[in-house]
Amino acid sequence: MSIKDSLLVNVSPPVETASDKVTVVGVGAVGMACAFSILTQGISSDVVLVDMMEDKVKGEVMDIQHGSLFLKNPKVSGSGDYSVTAGSKICVVTAGVRQKEGESRLDLVQRNTDVLKSIIPKLVQYSPQTILIIVSNPCDILTYVAWKLSGLPQHKVFGSGTNLDTSRFRFLLSQRLGVSPTSMHGWIIGEHGDSSGGFPIPVWSSVNVAGVNLKEINPDMGLDSDKENWKQVHKDVVAAAYDIIKLKGYTSWGIGLSVASLVSTILRNSHNVHCVSVFVKGMHNLDFDVFLSLPAVLGSEGVTDVLVQKLTSSERCSLKFSAALMAEVQAGIQF
Amino acid sequence: MSIKDSLLVNVSPPVETASDKVTVVGVGAVGMACAFSILTQGISSDVVLVDMMEDKVKGEVMDIQHGSLFLKNPKVSGSGDYSVTAGSKICVVTAGVRQKEGESRLDLVQRNTDVLKSIIPKLVQYSPQTILIIVSNPCDILTYVAWKLSGLPQHKVFGSGTNLDTSRFRFLLSQRLGVSPTSMHGWIIGEHGDSSGGFPIPVWSSVNVAGVNLKEINPDMGLDSDKENWKQVHKDVVAAAYDIIKLKGYTSWGIGLSVASLVSTILRNSHNVHCVSVFVKGMHNLDFDVFLSLPAVLGSEGVTDVLVQKLTSSERCSLKFSAALMAEVQAGIQF
Amino acid sequence: MSIKDSLLVNVSPPVETASDKVTVVGVGAVGMACAFSILTQGISSDVVLVDMMEDKVKGEVMDIQHGSLFLKNPKVSGSGDYSVTAGSKICVVTAGVRQKEGESRLDLVQRNTDVLKSIIPKLVQYSPQTILIIVSNPCDILTYVAWKLSGLPQHKVFGSGTNLDTSRFRFLLSQRLGVSPTSMHGWIIGEHGDSSGGFPIPVWSSVNVAGVNLKEINPDMGLDSDKENWKQVHKDVVAAAYDIIKLKGYTSWGIGLSVASLVSTILRNSHNVHCVSVFVKGMHNLDFDVFLSLPAVLGSEGVTDVLVQKLTSSERCSLKFSAALMAEVQAGIQF
Amino acid sequence: MSIKDSLLVNVSPPVETASDKVTVVGVGAVGMACAFSILTQGISSDVVLVDMMEDKVKGEVMDIQHGSLFLKNPKVSGSGDYSVTAGSKICVVTAGVRQKEGESRLDLVQRNTDVLKSIIPKLVQYSPQTILIIVSNPCDILTYVAWKLSGLPQHKVFGSGTNLDTSRFRFLLSQRLGVSPTSMHGWIIGEHGDSSGGFPIPVWSSVNVAGVNLKEINPDMGLDSDKENWKQVHKDVVAAAYDIIKLKGYTSWGIGLSVASLVSTILRNSHNVHCVSVFVKGMHNLDFDVFLSLPAVLGSEGVTDVLVQKLTSSERCSLKFSAALMAEVQAGIQF
Repeated sequence: MSIKDSLLVNVSPPVETASDKVTVVGVGAVGMACAFSILTQGISSDVVLVDMMEDKVKGEVMDIQHGSLFLKNPKVSGSGDYSVTAGSKICVVTAGVRQKEGESRLDLVQRNTDVLKSIIPKLVQYSPQTILIIVSNPCDILTYVAWKLSGLPQHKVFGSGTNLDTSRFRFLLSQRLGVSPTSMHGWIIGEHGDSSGGFPIPVWSSVNVAGVNLKEINPDMGLDSDKENWKQVHKDVVAAAYDIIKLKGYTSWGIGLSVASLVSTILRNSHNVHCVSVFVKGMHNLDFDVFLSLPAVLGSEGVTDVLVQKLTSSERCSLKFSAALMAEVQAGIQF
Repeated sequence: MSIKDSLLVNVSPPVETASDKVTVVGVGAVGMACAFSILTQGISSDVVLVDMMEDKVKGEVMDIQHGSLFLKNPKVSGSGDYSVTAGSKICVVTAGVRQKEGESRLDLVQRNTDVLKSIIPKLVQYSPQTILIIVSNPCDILTYVAWKLSGLPQHKVFGSGTNLDTSRFRFLLSQRLGVSPTSMHGWIIGEHGDSSGGFPIPVWSSVNVAGVNLKEINPDMGLDSDKENWKQVHKDVVAAAYDIIKLKGYTSWGIGLSVASLVSTILRNSHNVHCVSVFVKGMHNLDFDVFLSLPAVLGSEGVTDVLVQKLTSSERCSLKFSAALMAEVQAGIQF
Repeated sequence: MSIKDSLLVNVSPPVETASDKVTVVGVGAVGMACAFSILTQGISSDVVLVDMMEDKVKGEVMDIQHGSLFLKNPKVSGSGDYSVTAGSKICVVTAGVRQKEGESRLDLVQRNTDVLKSIIPKLVQYSPQTILIIVSNPCDILTYVAWKLSGLPQHKVFGSGTNLDTSRFRFLLSQRLGVSPTSMHGWIIGEHGDSSGGFPIPVWSSVNVAGVNLKEINPDMGLDSDKENWKQVHKDVVAAAYDIIKLKGYTSWGIGLSVASLVSTILRNSHNVHCVSVFVKGMHNLDFDVFLSLPAVLGSEGVTDVLVQKLTSSERCSLKFSAALMAEVQAGIQF
Repeated sequence: MSIKDSLLVNVSPPVETASDKVTVVGVGAVGMACAFSILTQGISSDVVLVDMMEDKVKGEVMDIQHGSLFLKNPKVSGSGDYSVTAGSKICVVTAGVRQKEGESRLDLVQRNTDVLKSIIPKLVQYSPQTILIIVSNPCDILTYVAWKLSGLPQHKVFGSGTNLDTSRFRFLLSQRLGVSPTSMHGWIIGEHGDSSGGFPIPVWSSVNVAGVNLKEINPDMGLDSDKENWKQVHKDVVAAAYDIIKLKGYTSWGIGLSVASLVSTILRNSHNVHCVSVFVKGMHNLDFDVFLSLPAVLGSEGVTDVLVQKLTSSERCSLKFSAALMAEVQAGIQF
């Protein structure tokens, strides 16, 4: 008799798939930071990695598994075959190609659309009830592409969008005042800034600490005329990805933590408000079939509500400009 | 238009019931310590309290809800009506009456059986797939009663049993050696000790730190002849509930944390080994339809395996004695 | 040779006191909820309970210790003798007597002052660098008393104040809108409402979700003329303690979680903003030596900054009224 | 007046250095996995990164800071200048060069000794009370080197050693039995296996689940004669680093989680037992001034005790062999 048979009297079969299963597609630096943030924070107990690079997947899975003792024994698995993703509550998509020197935005989008064509249908096939979080860049357009390819309802597909730009904004603002970023409130909406040409919009009019509106203290906040030059904070947010890539070659930890926060809100059905890339037609008089980041309430079925912020005409104008540009690019995509 | 309608554009309806929903029946000190331990440790995001004392339930729910901001916004609700428990993944039963002065064990068991008759069928009616964890005392017999009343398979009904006695044992042992209780290994099996007449059995032969067997160092460990008097640790475990009740009137925190650990293992499907009260017929040559604590592997469907410990003849004898006594009491119960 | 000596080769002596040591004075329901919230959330690894009722202390300590295995082996100890508190980073004071039927406010304050006289000097004697968090009611006046008795600088003594009222306010507001309380922003300042006659002031002008000011949507919010009757939320906050006491006999979980959040901010030096009872002379034109809750930044040395909110004349007036009333009571205290 | 001055009334200066400050030297994949594991698990609230590659440090710091909102606002900073490490409670050293093709072990050790010469004295200069955890490979010899260079007492310098090999062992064993690695007990002692020539020793005689000794069930366990081939688990542990490096290029997550567990035990003073590389002279009759992994109790001042395992003659022999080999290499080092 084997040790197992001598040691254990079986009473019921083990269960393979947890109800909080999360798939991460793409095991580059971004995908791994997402997966590791989810695991170390105990957000999910069942994480699956998928990538064509099967060796890389296998290595990453082994490496994390070897630390299982120090976590709460989450199940970590992976493959190049999508059948392992079956029953995922959430699929996080980080796969995609990077912009080549001189490549047009449409060409990049088309190449990534082709990548998503090989991913999204398989995810939905194995997990028809899944929620899709698109992280690949350009995030907003690819969220549109993923939504189209998935056949899922609007509320089940969204992009990580400016959840990260917002967190950068709040961190940088908070450092100037000496308060925690969780007590520093400010929102970045519109296009996610980590893709070239992205156009994240800071909503200066609502920046506050404990409800004290900072623009009421200094009406020039965010303007060129501001002697304290708060505008620099927005510039730093826009430059953040570029700066980090120049310094360390890629971004990973910030986006990983940002995505993990979204996964947590969904799995815990906690209805936190996050700036994520949602279908905006009809919001703020936008009349395009595009996805842009706005503050949204997330629950266990995805997006439950989108918030109606009071925007200045300049902010509305910027949103519309982004939307029009994206619609134009989207029109050229071959599905 | 209401503020809500002006503020939010609804995209999808909110989801009411989470997949990690846990019901706690009984809002006495034990039930509340269970619920609070589960919530503060982020183990479940959806906890329901049920008790006939509707005012007490309402007060406890409000009191915890007022701290939601400091947790991760778990849903906390409660009622005297079992319909609120619908869809529970786990139901923890702490309700029951206490032994009256001079009351026989059978009379106590019968009165608590009558209590369970008003609880268990309703829990199973509203959550046919639930797992039942019985905490009410005498825990082992009431687990048998609950199993009978529930119609659920064996692996879905177990008692919190000696998970707490074991944790007390490990804490007390650890303090003598100056190591963490998580690094101090020792098991208490058999009957849970917090009920009068309970008979928890320490498995001295397997007490170890980092695999170093202490009884190999001191073969007298646990015996009367032992000059270091390690037996006192077992005596302290047996007296623990009595001592605490004498000092503060009831026990709560220890059992709350113990139960929360079981709930965590199930909801995370983590296959930890816990000493819990399981159906033991066929184990260690026991031939009674009784529940006693043995080390068992727990997963998301309840008990997956029971461990076969190498017991001394004295330990086997004690187990058999407990089992026989319990079978005798059980034979007198009127269902 | 003892098992310990055979098992372990000693290399260095164990350290008894951790740098995150927290003392909780008073082991009633409030004190225990504070201690248990701190321990289950892993906020401190060294918690000391102090109370004259030595039996109760001993029972509570044993009860929690028995669950150490399920925590990360925090040190839990207690006594009636203050020497065990030596080296505390924070002391949380929950001890105090309750108002008798027909007792005047001053008489209650005087009796609690006498209680604090037997506590505060000993805490400061054994932990001269400690931070004091006063939870006993009436919280604001007793914070003043504790500050006077302690000889500590202003920033090291504050009351838990309206941190709880604010959390109740945010929870109740959030339920109307279907968002998480962490995404629902609103502040209650002034006197803590759990003492008779307390006068917590809601700052309606700054209630917001994601920076969207709700009073701009509905200018009647908080007024009698408001057809949505949001004022009821404030009424519910004011009545909360009374309602819960009527239902369950006392309040515990909410205040426990509230205090644990303050302890966490201090021990992690995280500079979160909390509404706590601070020395307000000079703030909002107040000219009294009193403590009232205002939003404040907390760090590892206590209060670093107090926020200047833009208050309406009615809000300022209410603050002044509270301050004057409290100064009057304070003038009658015999130290 | 600036926004800050209008918003905040300063009460006391902010505190810059937390009492749980941790420095990580080296921002390669290992160092970053250590730092990120520490931060995401909330183990320390103040993490400093140090490396000569100042750009890389700056990029990593920015990247994590941007996710501060999603953590509990830990302080994250970094530099190439060691003054930023002042007041560290723990310094984790991951810096070092890799073995060149054909390079002798002594040559590698010498080159890394030269690296440590530029690191250790500066760490001790700025944090004279610090604990050093050496992660760089060959871990055991470099722990000796660091100890020599530091002038610190034995208990304050140890290597991460076989804490990781042990966790790999427990994970791989656990998968065969279907239990959690936290319920699967087994120890790897001796030399850490991730360096070429390392010689980690599995203590088969104490492998157990819930105290049930597996070698008593199958006395061939770990031997060539074993029909279940459990020896393969040890082979997989020895090959783990090599296999992962072949698959993904380097190891990171496992070692990061392993080190974070050590840091947690120290900062929480929790006296858990870990296999770490300690000064072994006098243990198991070893007579060399070397560091090898044995189970040890860790507290807030470092190593408090080393466990005396009952080893087989073969296990003792292997330990002695490792020790002799290391002593020989160490004799050639030029300090």
